[in-house]
Amino acid sequence: MRNPSPPPPPDRKTARAVTPRRIVRDGAEVTDEVAVEEPLEIRVDGEPIATTMRTPGADADLALGFLFGEGIIASAADVTAASHCGRPGDEGYGNVLDVRSGAGVRLEPERLLEGRRFVPVSSACGVCGRRSIDGLLARAGRVDPTPRLAPGLVTEAVAALTAVQPGFARTGGLHAVAAFGPDGVVMAAAEDVGRHNAVDKVVGALLRAGRLGAGAPPEGRPALLAVSGRAGFEIVQKAAAAGIPAVASVSAPTSLAVDLAEEAGILLCGFVRGARCNVYASAWRLGRGAPPSR
Amino acid sequence: MRNPSPPPPPDRKTARAVTPRRIVRDGAEVTDEVAVEEPLEIRVDGEPIATTMRTPGADADLALGFLFGEGIIASAADVTAASHCGRPGDEGYGNVLDVRSGAGVRLEPERLLEGRRFVPVSSACGVCGRRSIDGLLARAGRVDPTPRLAPGLVTEAVAALTAVQPGFARTGGLHAVAAFGPDGVVMAAAEDVGRHNAVDKVVGALLRAGRLGAGAPPEGRPALLAVSGRAGFEIVQKAAAAGIPAVASVSAPTSLAVDLAEEAGILLCGFVRGARCNVYASAWRLGRGAPPSR
Repeated sequence: MRNPSPPPPPDRKTARAVTPRRIVRDGAEVTDEVAVEEPLEIRVDGEPIATTMRTPGADADLALGFLFGEGIIASAADVTAASHCGRPGDEGYGNVLDVRSGAGVRLEPERLLEGRRFVPVSSACGVCGRRSIDGLLARAGRVDPTPRLAPGLVTEAVAALTAVQPGFARTGGLHAVAAFGPDGVVMAAAEDVGRHNAVDKVVGALLRAGRLGAGAPPEGRPALLAVSGRAGFEIVQKAAAAGIPAVASVSAPTSLAVDLAEEAGILLCGFVRGARCNVYASAWRLGRGAPPSR
Repeated sequence: MRNPSPPPPPDRKTARAVTPRRIVRDGAEVTDEVAVEEPLEIRVDGEPIATTMRTPGADADLALGFLFGEGIIASAADVTAASHCGRPGDEGYGNVLDVRSGAGVRLEPERLLEGRRFVPVSSACGVCGRRSIDGLLARAGRVDPTPRLAPGLVTEAVAALTAVQPGFARTGGLHAVAAFGPDGVVMAAAEDVGRHNAVDKVVGALLRAGRLGAGAPPEGRPALLAVSGRAGFEIVQKAAAAGIPAVASVSAPTSLAVDLAEEAGILLCGFVRGARCNVYASAWRLGRGAPPSR
């Protein structure tokens, strides 16, 4: 980072997320820290299904959250094990993760392609945001309209996000995401060079803790997802798939993120800074008016 | 955006990149502008090969730059036409772009999968950053070591980036990328919700102008790529594929971006703000020492 104070000693949490490099600053060679980016290949029962550039750490959570967001697993129980393949010391060890189907479960990663493409392959020329939203809602459904949020939760959550960003403080190069309960308590948090990876890691941790997915009791579920970066379609898409009723971003949303949040019934706040924010969708979650009738 | 001045009248450049939405700010309902995000399906000779979430505009440049970065085309001459399919007025019109092979050329989009995976599919467990870099260098080669950059170019280019961000000024939600000549003149610029898309648009525009790709004369090529966001592996990868000898970012680089830039001989500057910056790789391009012997 620019003009950092002396770097803190490595801790377990950032040990693999941050790495030193020799750089030139103001004409002098110094050591600086940068965010680690490495490819992760995700396999299901030995079959490679996706490669993502991510920051190492919480790889099993990342894979679980990714598979859940794509509709391939419904809960953590659909999986028995998620482990790095190969042996420690091998070149690239730690960058291939194999996820195994749970007992009596046959995961169908081929559904991934459909999910990625948003629309069935056809000779038609239509691919549009409207259809992306419809397709997603058909799969994930609208988010439970019951939960209303305390007005202070959004700004408190975004303020609390800073506390879960040790890697960002050291590198300026990591995104942070955290899930909060309705009481404002952090339920899970993650950092990653990719925003979508950080969301997947948080969702995966919530799945493992039984706070999300099929069978998770309503009262233990997260109320809000706070993200340090922009809120694009993919972020709101993952919140919708997880049934999380609110997304708050430090930065800007996109048009498709706003439209999906409105359709799915997700509160979407952007430019949350200090006590202020812009409410882009589903303001009724904050007590402003009633949810739209469908 | 937060507390914007009254929005300027729509201009041609941002007409499709920015859209109004009703939002709640400080308890009042107001109209704000957000960055447009829509899916673009890229087809080659009628065959869908990729879908990306992008900001509409310069779609043909985006497709050209993408195909070039993936090694599917070597110059703009490999393509005869790139046009939206369907009819204006159809739902989703403008979100499917078909690129046609040039005369006597057979494009091979199946190479895309290899490019995406970085490594050949095998039963081995190794996928690592080291191998990603080697694979990329084997395809793209190292960047011509001849060009040295004037010391002021980096900071001037990043300062000039602000002038090519009309959409960001209105929404806070768009990334900007611009290519500069050795004299500091802007050769091409683009905005997009995705940084990688903005790079592809710039590369595509340079290809069309004969400034990049097979047959482009050395003296007309870009000297530097300036990006408003973070410099991850994918950004440096695209610069390497295009033979652009320098990348400057307002923000942080990642470990793999630094390592690739060093290996490929690309000057990589981060946290470029005012007259200051951090040089993360290939400082010899600025006259500090000699290029490493390979």
